[in-house]
Amino acid sequence: MIPRRISKPLTIGDVPVGGGRPVVVQSMTNTDTRDALATVKQIHALEEAGCEIVRVAVPDMAAAEALPRIKSQIHIPLVADIHFDYRLALAALAAGVDGLRLNPGNIRERDKVAAVVRSARERQVPIRIGVNAGSLPPLPPLAPGEHPPPTPQRMVDVALEQARFLEALDFHLIKISLKAFDVPTTVEAYRLIAPLVPYPLHLGITEAGTVRAGSIRSAVGLGILLYEGIGDTIRVSLTGDPVPEVETAYHILSSLGLRQRGPVLVSCPTCGRCETDLVSLAQAVEERLVRLGKPLKVAVMGCVVNGPGEAREADLGLAAGKGRGVIFKKGQVLRTVEEKDFLSALLTEIDGL
Amino acid sequence: MIPRRISKPLTIGDVPVGGGRPVVVQSMTNTDTRDALATVKQIHALEEAGCEIVRVAVPDMAAAEALPRIKSQIHIPLVADIHFDYRLALAALAAGVDGLRLNPGNIRERDKVAAVVRSARERQVPIRIGVNAGSLPPLPPLAPGEHPPPTPQRMVDVALEQARFLEALDFHLIKISLKAFDVPTTVEAYRLIAPLVPYPLHLGITEAGTVRAGSIRSAVGLGILLYEGIGDTIRVSLTGDPVPEVETAYHILSSLGLRQRGPVLVSCPTCGRCETDLVSLAQAVEERLVRLGKPLKVAVMGCVVNGPGEAREADLGLAAGKGRGVIFKKGQVLRTVEEKDFLSALLTEIDGL
Repeated sequence: MIPRRISKPLTIGDVPVGGGRPVVVQSMTNTDTRDALATVKQIHALEEAGCEIVRVAVPDMAAAEALPRIKSQIHIPLVADIHFDYRLALAALAAGVDGLRLNPGNIRERDKVAAVVRSARERQVPIRIGVNAGSLPPLPPLAPGEHPPPTPQRMVDVALEQARFLEALDFHLIKISLKAFDVPTTVEAYRLIAPLVPYPLHLGITEAGTVRAGSIRSAVGLGILLYEGIGDTIRVSLTGDPVPEVETAYHILSSLGLRQRGPVLVSCPTCGRCETDLVSLAQAVEERLVRLGKPLKVAVMGCVVNGPGEAREADLGLAAGKGRGVIFKKGQVLRTVEEKDFLSALLTEIDGL
Repeated sequence: MIPRRISKPLTIGDVPVGGGRPVVVQSMTNTDTRDALATVKQIHALEEAGCEIVRVAVPDMAAAEALPRIKSQIHIPLVADIHFDYRLALAALAAGVDGLRLNPGNIRERDKVAAVVRSARERQVPIRIGVNAGSLPPLPPLAPGEHPPPTPQRMVDVALEQARFLEALDFHLIKISLKAFDVPTTVEAYRLIAPLVPYPLHLGITEAGTVRAGSIRSAVGLGILLYEGIGDTIRVSLTGDPVPEVETAYHILSSLGLRQRGPVLVSCPTCGRCETDLVSLAQAVEERLVRLGKPLKVAVMGCVVNGPGEAREADLGLAAGKGRGVIFKKGQVLRTVEEKDFLSALLTEIDGL
């Protein structure tokens, strides 16, 4: 078990965040928010994948007006993402959203932020101070046209300044994020702020790229922080359909034993020692496991070197040898099966578990 | 820059390993090693993907006999993976391999290990002590049929015992790995051994699963260790064709700034604020970048929130707005382009970089 940083708990809608509660998986729609039908449809797909809080961009008043229709048709808390115009934040609050994300780089006038904070306080709606390395408030250029690079300290300073301002307005339902594309920048920023504030931290590697590269980059960055106990909610940012963001988030959490959604498949890379078509077998087993959605650990191993050891540690395991294999169940040898029966035997046992 | 653990350097063939040298990317074939033609073909594909050391299983004497044919046709060092039969290790050394991997759980008789070590010493061929949680030497059962679980300390003890034995035979060309499927077990094992030995460490999360889940699990585990400066060589184990193992390894290293092979694409997840088909654009740009193979950082951003900031930090960037976008090159605004010209303008600039 990883010792967690214990933050001040809050709830987004009915979802508890922080205070040592399980790490919450978030995502964000990429439909046009004004198109409530398309947005609701995408949120339903995200819910199905295990998304627990969803964020939508609110770039104009028509988007804000679509929020009640969206909110009434979904089953998870709705967060409005606001930049530039504080009136959109007020409209989103009036529309009944469960959370706000404000970027301190993009709504900077104090009286306008104060109006939003007062409305959020009345409604007891949490605000995430969402700092992003790509949109820090400008500093004087070092030389003409030369912008100071976004450092972890600068990101933290911007977040702290905003937090102090909200606290001065007696607002404490705060969550903070400090996202960058660069993993070391992100990790150092969160490490810096973690001991300085009591608030839950939302983790993300921003603009991480397409599904494959972005999932790996997010796994590295979020993995480092989560293993240090930092992080109360996470979002994986991938270019494309958002459903894979949720899947990747659970793979990250599952690999650290923090959450498990659905099965875990232990399968060997195969090598010159492998005498069966393990790749197809592993894929077929994974497909069935994903469909079942049970939190099982299943091992599909191609040889006698690590097979029995790994199979023994799983709920169900197959250690394949030449022409036959041994099925393990909860650490005990169950029986020997012929190669032609590997898949059917595993599927039968999986269904029975 | 991540401060690295400085290990005692050695070379596998002509590839320097340890001593603060760049982290080396390895993979392993899953062809039948006896089929030299298929194995060489797969190694050529791995070389093309950037694999720097390749390992082949040598499960029998026919596989050992194929090694000279394989070695003569490839361009990267060849490591033989041996279990159970020390004579296969002797045959592999005689065949001219550049490294050996021995699993101390599976070749346990001291005089037989000694014969292998003496031959490796004569030829100055390094040996990796490759401990695997799934194949630790047996301990007395806790109760009948109840096996003690593989702990990090047990993995380290097994590796140290083997290392002491090799050292007693005046053999010091040692590399160590301590692989498990479980990320915390793996991380703790490497953390334990890192200060106890001077040797290079080879990292891996074993039997990590299929391409998607296994890449994410490996990124979490290897990412945590690499960010602590631990790890001289890495292998990502994925069920399936080994080429994606190499791609994932570079994505992991690149996200920590440790190595870069080919381009890095910064692309936003898009949201309700995005007014262009960024997903297709990002994919098209990524394809071109991968084909070019240059170590560029290119940002493709869908809106004015983080777009200009991220685009400015990249070698080349596009911050798209409504109907048009701004191209950045090395931090400077280059020009504004119409939406229909986004792809062609980016590709032209990429080709010119």
